[in-house]
Amino acid sequence: MTVARPDEVRRYNRSSLLRLLHTAGPATRAALATALGLNRSTIKMLVDGLAEDGVVEERVPRQSRGAGRPSLLVLPQPEAAVVLAVDVQVEHAGIALVGFGGQMMGRNSWNLRGRQRDPDEVITHVAESAAVLAEDLGLTAIAAGVCIPGVVRRADGLVHGAANLRWGEVALGQRLGTVLNMPVVVGNDAEFGALAEHVRGAGRGSSDTVFVSADVGVGGGLISQGSLLRGSAGYLGEIGHMTVNPGGRSCHCGNRGCWETEVGEAALCRALGMPEHGPRGAIVAELRALHGDYGDRLDDYLEWLTLGLVNVVNILGPELVVLGDLFTALPDSAVTRVADQVRTRSMVSRALGGVRIEKSRLGGDLKLLGAAEAAFEGVLALL
Amino acid sequence: MTVARPDEVRRYNRSSLLRLLHTAGPATRAALATALGLNRSTIKMLVDGLAEDGVVEERVPRQSRGAGRPSLLVLPQPEAAVVLAVDVQVEHAGIALVGFGGQMMGRNSWNLRGRQRDPDEVITHVAESAAVLAEDLGLTAIAAGVCIPGVVRRADGLVHGAANLRWGEVALGQRLGTVLNMPVVVGNDAEFGALAEHVRGAGRGSSDTVFVSADVGVGGGLISQGSLLRGSAGYLGEIGHMTVNPGGRSCHCGNRGCWETEVGEAALCRALGMPEHGPRGAIVAELRALHGDYGDRLDDYLEWLTLGLVNVVNILGPELVVLGDLFTALPDSAVTRVADQVRTRSMVSRALGGVRIEKSRLGGDLKLLGAAEAAFEGVLALL
Repeated sequence: MTVARPDEVRRYNRSSLLRLLHTAGPATRAALATALGLNRSTIKMLVDGLAEDGVVEERVPRQSRGAGRPSLLVLPQPEAAVVLAVDVQVEHAGIALVGFGGQMMGRNSWNLRGRQRDPDEVITHVAESAAVLAEDLGLTAIAAGVCIPGVVRRADGLVHGAANLRWGEVALGQRLGTVLNMPVVVGNDAEFGALAEHVRGAGRGSSDTVFVSADVGVGGGLISQGSLLRGSAGYLGEIGHMTVNPGGRSCHCGNRGCWETEVGEAALCRALGMPEHGPRGAIVAELRALHGDYGDRLDDYLEWLTLGLVNVVNILGPELVVLGDLFTALPDSAVTRVADQVRTRSMVSRALGGVRIEKSRLGGDLKLLGAAEAAFEGVLALL
Repeated sequence: MTVARPDEVRRYNRSSLLRLLHTAGPATRAALATALGLNRSTIKMLVDGLAEDGVVEERVPRQSRGAGRPSLLVLPQPEAAVVLAVDVQVEHAGIALVGFGGQMMGRNSWNLRGRQRDPDEVITHVAESAAVLAEDLGLTAIAAGVCIPGVVRRADGLVHGAANLRWGEVALGQRLGTVLNMPVVVGNDAEFGALAEHVRGAGRGSSDTVFVSADVGVGGGLISQGSLLRGSAGYLGEIGHMTVNPGGRSCHCGNRGCWETEVGEAALCRALGMPEHGPRGAIVAELRALHGDYGDRLDDYLEWLTLGLVNVVNILGPELVVLGDLFTALPDSAVTRVADQVRTRSMVSRALGGVRIEKSRLGGDLKLLGAAEAAFEGVLALL
């Protein structure tokens, strides 16, 4: 450590202010000063600087309470920093341009079938699609975040493997960085889902959140003491490949009875008596048609979901578990039943006075929002 | 953030130097300067200050290489800061006084049977025993670390429950703090075991280490990116209560087939054909007598050990797993077999290029060393 010079302090304060505006949205100077523990003159200087640079705008709030002179609202300007978010899933890919403050400025998506799912095709299509979107909107992205349903090394965006996409080793970060000509951060989709829930979803205000989501595969991400947890070499764990049923079905990972094989999309189809690889829409429609009246059809499925969640809570001790993707299509009564069971059966939940278990409310945008936040992590400090 | 003043910088540098001497041991001024990135005059000033306060001593090294004037060795002085380490286990309790630099200055232990295991008795005995030890050695402890095989809230040392000790809720941190009249930090024994391995054991130099240990119960602690991970509200997870065998034996936690019921002490006794609650020494002797020639007697036991470790590695993605306590008594060939299996069967290990799995080499002192390090965490900055 060397002595912090005044310009370093100013830069630190400016970047804290940018982060606060980005995550919490418009606020008055007074509220910003309180939140950051800075005095009014420091906040004024910082806000004036940001306004000069076009990063924020100050406006009289529409509704001003009280008698005195209304406090000016500081509004983040989305165009001040735009990032490209990319979400590659098994059946489709999506991109979005997301502005400072988290506003989605425009988006595009396409189906992935057969050859379209090859890494080369995905990279080409993402680059073309991003260029078209940016031109249409008259915006320029300065960084990109990409999420992939696979094992990803965060340091350089190497996809070690994405079984459900049938990808082997792909240097995705490096290759997309070259074609897009901007910094690219690549992550596992559940990891970025956890980030999205932490910054924009049910996990706001919680310091220890686990996000667990089911698509074709099952994945999870962990926010611990306010930060996204990563394993060794930046590899996130693969919670879907926790064995919950040693006598269960074979998994592509080589083991039997992984949580993924018991509560992933195929397992849900089997529970509903549907063909295993049907379109996603049909599964969701079937679940909706139950109107919560599912009798004992889902008993086994919910038991495996409960058992895995008891493990997750016992191992990681979170205060909140957010269920994403296909899990959000489960009837509310089923989720309530699972949550009650987990609170009863997990000794760590009992010690904590009851873990909360909630469905994600960020919908289909979740992963794009997470990918955008991952990109913003490196960008905000530079604004 | 405010501007760092020169005295704050000095304090920060001094505390970095103290931590380095404490964890890495004696070193020359030149080596210390290199390790901390400080120049020679700063190091001289800091070392002179510490020498004046009696925290270090400078000596000519016994063997000095090369022709020039030998570089003086800076040696931490153990008496400069002494902490009390307390390890409460199911069958016995131990205390030690540990000095700055990690040296064990003296110790004492006693059996816990029947009423001696009651919290009141344990607290009284720890306090008396600590007073006698301190007087014998002419030392005064300035803080204490205590490890318990149970669910512990780190913030205030509340033991929520320690099933194998038959403890309910015990305000251990508060009560010991009062009788010992010093700051007391209480933690789960596997958590402090992880800390000991990180600072003094196989985990030195690894940033992502899982420590897993078997006694009557099975517990684990995680070092992630160089820090001890804690769950929500400071509760550590309870990895021993991950279900690995849903059709398995009942566990005191209310579930079936917890990892603890499949690889804890009782399970090992069953595998060896011994009575379940025999003395620890008999189990170790039986394992030694096998001379690695255990045929298929341990097959089931090792399979559950493997399965749980595959889960741990898949979920947390560590670079190193250290096996503690009863696991260290397993034949080396059995541990090698388990490690090979985990590397083959865990997809995350495959992505990482192979997780390392090693036995702890800290022996019976492990938990005392960990408890001491937990106490030192709050102490070093004040020296």
